[in-house]
Amino acid sequence: MFEIIRRDGLARIGKLETPHGQLETPALLPVVNPRLVTVPPRELHDVFGFQALITNSYIIRNDPKLNARAKEVGLHEMLDFPGTIMTDSGTFQSHMYGEVEVKNEDIINFQREIGTDIGTVLDIFTEPDWSKEKTAHAVDVTMDRTIEAADLKGKMLLAGVVQGSVFEDLREDCARRLALVDVDVHPIGGVVPLMEQYRFAELADVIVASKKGLDPSRPVHLFGAGHPMVFALAALLGCDMFDSASYAKFARDDRFMFPEGTASLADMKGIHCHCPACQSHSYQEIAAMKPAERAALIARHNLWVSLEEIQRVKRAILEGDLWELVERRCRAHPALLSALRHLAKHQEYLERFEPLSRDNSLLYTGPETLSRPIFLRYERRFFERYKYPDTEVMVAFEEAGKPYARHYQKEMADVMESCDAHFFVASPIGAVPIELDEMYPVAQSLFPEPPDLQTKERIREQMEHLSHEHPYALGVAWDGQATIDTLMMMCQKKPSFDIDLARVRAVCDYQFGKGAADLLLDGKVAIKKSETTGKIRNVLVDGEHILSMRANDGFFTLRPPGAMRLKKGFDAPKLRVTVKDDSIPFNREGKNVFNAFVTECDPEIRPMDEVMVVDQKDDLVALGRAILTREEMFSFRTGIAVKVREGIKL
Amino acid sequence: MFEIIRRDGLARIGKLETPHGQLETPALLPVVNPRLVTVPPRELHDVFGFQALITNSYIIRNDPKLNARAKEVGLHEMLDFPGTIMTDSGTFQSHMYGEVEVKNEDIINFQREIGTDIGTVLDIFTEPDWSKEKTAHAVDVTMDRTIEAADLKGKMLLAGVVQGSVFEDLREDCARRLALVDVDVHPIGGVVPLMEQYRFAELADVIVASKKGLDPSRPVHLFGAGHPMVFALAALLGCDMFDSASYAKFARDDRFMFPEGTASLADMKGIHCHCPACQSHSYQEIAAMKPAERAALIARHNLWVSLEEIQRVKRAILEGDLWELVERRCRAHPALLSALRHLAKHQEYLERFEPLSRDNSLLYTGPETLSRPIFLRYERRFFERYKYPDTEVMVAFEEAGKPYARHYQKEMADVMESCDAHFFVASPIGAVPIELDEMYPVAQSLFPEPPDLQTKERIREQMEHLSHEHPYALGVAWDGQATIDTLMMMCQKKPSFDIDLARVRAVCDYQFGKGAADLLLDGKVAIKKSETTGKIRNVLVDGEHILSMRANDGFFTLRPPGAMRLKKGFDAPKLRVTVKDDSIPFNREGKNVFNAFVTECDPEIRPMDEVMVVDQKDDLVALGRAILTREEMFSFRTGIAVKVREGIKL
Repeated sequence: MFEIIRRDGLARIGKLETPHGQLETPALLPVVNPRLVTVPPRELHDVFGFQALITNSYIIRNDPKLNARAKEVGLHEMLDFPGTIMTDSGTFQSHMYGEVEVKNEDIINFQREIGTDIGTVLDIFTEPDWSKEKTAHAVDVTMDRTIEAADLKGKMLLAGVVQGSVFEDLREDCARRLALVDVDVHPIGGVVPLMEQYRFAELADVIVASKKGLDPSRPVHLFGAGHPMVFALAALLGCDMFDSASYAKFARDDRFMFPEGTASLADMKGIHCHCPACQSHSYQEIAAMKPAERAALIARHNLWVSLEEIQRVKRAILEGDLWELVERRCRAHPALLSALRHLAKHQEYLERFEPLSRDNSLLYTGPETLSRPIFLRYERRFFERYKYPDTEVMVAFEEAGKPYARHYQKEMADVMESCDAHFFVASPIGAVPIELDEMYPVAQSLFPEPPDLQTKERIREQMEHLSHEHPYALGVAWDGQATIDTLMMMCQKKPSFDIDLARVRAVCDYQFGKGAADLLLDGKVAIKKSETTGKIRNVLVDGEHILSMRANDGFFTLRPPGAMRLKKGFDAPKLRVTVKDDSIPFNREGKNVFNAFVTECDPEIRPMDEVMVVDQKDDLVALGRAILTREEMFSFRTGIAVKVREGIKL
Repeated sequence: MFEIIRRDGLARIGKLETPHGQLETPALLPVVNPRLVTVPPRELHDVFGFQALITNSYIIRNDPKLNARAKEVGLHEMLDFPGTIMTDSGTFQSHMYGEVEVKNEDIINFQREIGTDIGTVLDIFTEPDWSKEKTAHAVDVTMDRTIEAADLKGKMLLAGVVQGSVFEDLREDCARRLALVDVDVHPIGGVVPLMEQYRFAELADVIVASKKGLDPSRPVHLFGAGHPMVFALAALLGCDMFDSASYAKFARDDRFMFPEGTASLADMKGIHCHCPACQSHSYQEIAAMKPAERAALIARHNLWVSLEEIQRVKRAILEGDLWELVERRCRAHPALLSALRHLAKHQEYLERFEPLSRDNSLLYTGPETLSRPIFLRYERRFFERYKYPDTEVMVAFEEAGKPYARHYQKEMADVMESCDAHFFVASPIGAVPIELDEMYPVAQSLFPEPPDLQTKERIREQMEHLSHEHPYALGVAWDGQATIDTLMMMCQKKPSFDIDLARVRAVCDYQFGKGAADLLLDGKVAIKKSETTGKIRNVLVDGEHILSMRANDGFFTLRPPGAMRLKKGFDAPKLRVTVKDDSIPFNREGKNVFNAFVTECDPEIRPMDEVMVVDQKDDLVALGRAILTREEMFSFRTGIAVKVREGIKL
C-alpha cells in the first residue's frame, strides 16, 4: 500500500508499506551483492539510516551456499538487515551476460520462499539499440511473465517492470497494460545503458512515457539509477525509488560521486568533502591508502553523498523549489541540460500536475525555465479566461527591433497622463494585466537582467498573441521587476478604473474559470483590505463574505456563500469533489476527504486548487484544497484527496 | 610576501607569509567578535583547520578589560589562536553606527602593539548611495591614511583598503594609487551593502575595477564576504581572501548557509546536511534545541559549509573547471545570474589572464558560457591569425531561417563528392576549419542539444564575420558534436589537401602568431604520427625535430630548433622572457625562471603559453611555459615566472 504525503507536480513524498516496515520515498536502495559485501547491510541500516536495500535473487539462487542459507534462515537474517529488502530477478544479468538460466516461475517462487519483501518479475531487458519489433515482442513476454508472477506472489510485494527500450509508445503501452495487473511497484527497466551513455534526454522521455501509462498509486522505481546527478530530475518526473551498485563499483575504480558529477581520484587535485567518510582524511591520506581500504572509504562517501541528495530532493518537494534544484543540477553536464531542454516537449503533460502555487519564489536559471509548466498554465488561463476591460483603451509601446527598452517609460507616463488607459506588462511570464500582478507566479518570480534572447523572444511571442486576441492590445515596455513597480505606482496615482474590483474579477476568472467573476460578484461588492499591507483580504457581496485573498500567492479561498454561487452557476463536476455518503458526516465536521470515498471529481482540478466537496445530490459538504488530481483520487486506495478547511454543518 | 602556486585566469592559489605562519589562499577568515565568541578560536584552528581569523581592533581598544589584556599578553594569547590574526580598524563600525572615535595613527599603533599579523588602515567606508564627489573625497582621505599607516606599520603586515563606492573609475584610480604605497594586502571595502542587497552585478564591476589597478603580487581580500554563494565568483575575479561574521550572525537568526543560498529554519521542512555539525541531529532535534545551543550548531554548520566551498573552489582552480563551478553557483539566484551576465563586459580584461588551455573540458551551462574569455580568444586569433587556403573552394550551406539543420548533411556530402572543398564547421566556438578541430577548446567542448537562441545567434554572427573576411567563405551545417565527426569522416575519406600539414600550419599560427608557420615550416616537412591514436606527435623540418604536439590540448611544445626559427623571424620581445645574467646558468640546467630575474617579457604572453627564455643578448637559454603574464612577472618578487622544460646547454 502506497500513500502520498506531499507532492510537487509529479514528484512526491510517499510511504510504502512492506512486510518489513514503512519505506519513505523518494528512497535510494543500495545494491548489496551477497557475494561481495562492500558496506555491511547492518551498517547501511543503523549508521546511514537506509530503510531498504536491494539484492539479487538470481545470484543467491545460483550460489549453493547462499541458496541453502537463504532458504534456511531467510534473506533478512542472512544479510543481517532489519528493513525492507527488494530483490532483482536476473534480468540485469541477461543484459550483462546474455541469457540467464532460470524460469520466471522459479525465480518468483524462490524470492517468495526466501522472504523477499519486494520481488521482481523476470522481465526482458530491452536494449536501446533494439528494433521496434524485437522490443514489442520483449514487452509481450514481459507482460506474460508479469501476469504469471502476479498469480504466484502471495504476500510478497511484486515489482512489475516497464520495458520498451527508447520507444515512447511501447513504454506507454507496456505501462498501461501493467496498470491492469496486480503488482505493487513499477520499476522502469532497461535504462542503465541510457544513463551510462549520458543519454539523459531519452531517459526523460522514457520516464514520462512510462508515467503516462502507469497507475499513479504505485511507486515508480528507476532501475539502476544511483548517481546523485540524476535524482532531482528523475524525482521531478515522478520516480519514487532508486537503486544502484554504482556507489561500490565507482569506489573500486577510485571514483567519487557528487551531485555535480563523478571525480576520479587520479584527476582530483584535492578533496573538499566533509561527509562522515571523508571528514578526517586528507586527499594525500586517501591517495596513500591500500586499494581495499580506499574503496571502502569511497563507497561510504558515495553513499553519504547520495543520501544527502535524496534528502535534498525531499526538502525541495516540501519547500517548493524542486524545479530550481533540478535546473541547477542539470548544469552538471550538457547532456543533462539537453534533458532539461527536452522537458519542453512534455509541458502539456506536466501541467496537469502543476500546483496552483508554491511556497517558494520562481527563480529564473536560464532559457529552460521558460518551459516550466507554470508558463503554459499562465498563457493558457490568461488567454482563455481573462476578460478584457470594455471601457479602457489599450496602449501600445511597440516598435520593430526594440520593443521593450527603458526609454519608453517616460513616453508611457506621458500617455498615461493623457488617456484613460489599461496597461499590460510584457513580462517573461506572459502578458500581465496589472490586476494579476500579485498572483502566483507573477509577483513571486525573479528574473536576471538584462534578459537573454530566449526571454526576449518569449515576451515578443506573448505580446504578439495578445495583439491577435485583442485588437487594441499591444505590448507595453518590459524592463524587469522595476517596470512592474513603476507601472503600479503610476496606476495607483491615477487609477482609470477600480483596480481592486478589477483584481478580484481577474483572479476569480483565472482561478475558478471563465465566468466565475460574474457568478461570484453579482450584487453589491465590498472589498476589505489589510490596514498594514493595503492588500485585499476579504470580498463581501450583498453583505456576505464570499472570498478571502491569501497574502502569499494572491489566490482566493472560498467562503461558503461564494461556493454556493459557483455551484449554482457551474454545472457538476466543475470545481467539485463528490464523496460517498459514509464520508459526509466526517467532512461536515471539517475532517479531510480520503481517496477511497471519492466518486467523482472535476478533471480540470490541479493540486492545491480550491474545491467544493459535495454529496451525491451535489449538496455542499465542505470546502478545502485538492491534494490530488482526479485520476490520482480514483487510483489511490488510501491517503488524502482533499484537505478540508471548513465543513458545512447541516 | 605573497606567492602564486597555481592559477586559472585571475583566480589563484597562493601563499602569504605572515608573522604567525603561512596562509594558503583562497582563504576564509572567520570573524571573531572578542566580546561574543560563538566558536572558540582554538576550535577554529584545531578542529576546522582555519589558518587565520579576523577580529576587530577597534572593539578591543574601546573595551578597557580587553584593551589591557591584549596589551599585556598579546592578541594571540588573548584569543588563544596560534595562526594568523588580521584585525579590522573600526571602519565597518563607522558604516554601521556613524563616526568612530579613533584616529588612524592611534589604531595602527594599537594594532601593532597588540601583535596583529595583518593590521588595517582606518579607511572611509564609501557607501553605494554616495555622490561621486563625496566618494572621491573619501578615497583621498583613505589614501592619506594609508600612506600614514605604511610609515607606522613596522613588521606588521598592512591592509590598504580599496574604496570608491560603485564608481568603477574611482575604484581603479584608488587601486592604482594604493599599488604605489608599501602595503601588503588589499581588501576591497565598502561592498557589504552590495552583498546584502544582492547587487552582485555591481559587486563584480567593483572587483574587476579594483583588480585592474592593484599590484597583482598582493593578495586581494573581499571585505565582509562570507557567504559560500559568492566565493566561486569572487575567486574567479581574483579575490584571494574572504571574511565574514555571517556564519555567527546568520546562526543567531536560525539561518543555514549553503552554496545555493540561505535557508531559514522556519522555512525548512527538513535538513539534508551531513556536515560534522549537523550529522548526528535530525531536523526535529535541531528545531527543539534551546536558541543558544542551536545557534552554536548552526554557526558550526555555516563554517563547515563555507570551508567546504573554499576547498571546492581551490579544487576547481587546480583541476581547471572554475568557470563551470561559477556558472553553476550563479544559478543560486537571478541576481547572481545577472552578475554572471555582467562578466561579458569584462571579457577583454579577463582574456589577458585566460590560460592557453585547461585540463578540464569546456562544459556549456547556458548562454552566459558564450561570454567566457576563451570565446573572445578564439574569435580574435582565428580572424587575425588563420591563413585561408588559397587553392580550395569554400562551400556554403546557408539559407535564410534554417541555416544549420540536419538535412544539409546529405547535400553537403554530395558537394564534397563533386568539388575540391575546404570546410568550416559553424560551431558555437566560432568558425572552425577542420585543421583546428583537435585544438583546445574546440575538441574539448560539450554543448547541449538543441542549441538555444543565443547559441544560434552566436553561430550566425561568427559565420557572418567569416563571410566578410573571406569572399568565398560561408557557414557550413552545424549540428552539434555529431557534425564535427561527420565532417571529419567525410574529409578523411577524400582529403582534397594535406590535412596534417594544414593542421600543423594552422595551429602554429594560432598558437605562436601570424607568420609562425612560415618561419617554422620553411624546408622539407615530415610529420610523425602516433601509431595508436593516429594523431600528430612530432614535426621535423629538414630532419630537425622542431615541434611536438600535445595530445591533451592539441597545442605544440617547442623544440630548440623550432625556437631558433621563431627567434630569428620574430623580433624581441615576442614569445620571449628575458632574464638576468645570474639566472642563466640555472635555467640552462633546466631550472625554472623566478620572477625576480625577469627583465623583459612579451606582453602578449598568456598563462601556459610556450615561451623562449633568453639572455640580455637574446640568446636562447631555455624553453618552457609561462605561468604568469608580463605584468605579474614584474610585480612578484618571488615565485615562478616560467616553468622550464628544457635548458639549452652551451
